[in-house]
Amino acid sequence: METSHLIWKEGESRQLFRSKVFSIRETESRSPRGESRLFTVMDAPDWVIVVPLLETEKGPCFVMVRQWRHGSRELSLEFPGGVMEKGESAEEGAKREFEEETAYRAAKLRTLGDMSPNPAIMSNRVHFYAAENLTPLRSQNLDEDEFVDVERIPVGDVIGGMGKPPFIHALTAAALALYMGRTAVS
Amino acid sequence: METSHLIWKEGESRQLFRSKVFSIRETESRSPRGESRLFTVMDAPDWVIVVPLLETEKGPCFVMVRQWRHGSRELSLEFPGGVMEKGESAEEGAKREFEEETAYRAAKLRTLGDMSPNPAIMSNRVHFYAAENLTPLRSQNLDEDEFVDVERIPVGDVIGGMGKPPFIHALTAAALALYMGRTAVS
Repeated sequence: METSHLIWKEGESRQLFRSKVFSIRETESRSPRGESRLFTVMDAPDWVIVVPLLETEKGPCFVMVRQWRHGSRELSLEFPGGVMEKGESAEEGAKREFEEETAYRAAKLRTLGDMSPNPAIMSNRVHFYAAENLTPLRSQNLDEDEFVDVERIPVGDVIGGMGKPPFIHALTAAALALYMGRTAVS
Repeated sequence: METSHLIWKEGESRQLFRSKVFSIRETESRSPRGESRLFTVMDAPDWVIVVPLLETEKGPCFVMVRQWRHGSRELSLEFPGGVMEKGESAEEGAKREFEEETAYRAAKLRTLGDMSPNPAIMSNRVHFYAAENLTPLRSQNLDEDEFVDVERIPVGDVIGGMGKPPFIHALTAAALALYMGRTAVS
């Protein structure tokens, strides 16, 4: 496919802001017509999200976490996940975040895909995995400022509830789309 | 459900950075155990995303847009959408962005839900709609720095392709999850 009429030439960047969780830079780019424009971009470490499926006495459930979110100032019921640490692979990060938050371990993670959380303004990626054949661990392993409830929610309730509170995290919905696209979900 | 052990008390904020598309603030919050912590939050206008379905000679298709994204520095094939303008409702913004980018008009938009693009670090919402019964307009109505191809992609190709290039936009995947949850999709 001919796409040269859509391609911008990315140029120089300069950092404008830096915090512990992300930084902001301004970047110059030249349009397909050759005009220069400035864009603001957020840099952050990559993120991981895990879709954990558990067979229970009430049928197939997703293992989800309920926690306060400081951006939207509300409780969110979402798939476990977090920020990758330096030196770990996406799969290692996913496995670690999943175990720490839920106190379950998966024999193996299955990749569901990689996406940009928001390619318009963010440069990092989010890596999605499915976790099956879960075994319980003794307890969660949370940071001292993490307060996270673990809940087992029937798959149909998650699919039908997405987009209404407490299912308000768009990256959890994105993970669900990948899971549904790769798996026969009833 | 008893959730008081999860609830933080949000306190004062101060702005740290401001650009045309978003601003950054630091906000203090008191944990369920009463300890004070600082968090960094991005404020931005709300966004809208439209899932447009079109019956074609090759079966049901989504109307999608292919464009360069300056955060991830790549082409993205995604549902139309954008930033709400001051004074317009979410549905008006969705209708406007859909018409400007795709040159289609929908008799009516159907709401699919509202979510937070990332409730951990963002305070705004993204509003999702489905568009059906489309009629073609004469032409796109793009800003002079927008370069957008309109493509009709079979529904199954979008569901199966999500999470691999060019389907790299997580908010497009989130929209698909809401659409699949509200609609029987084959």
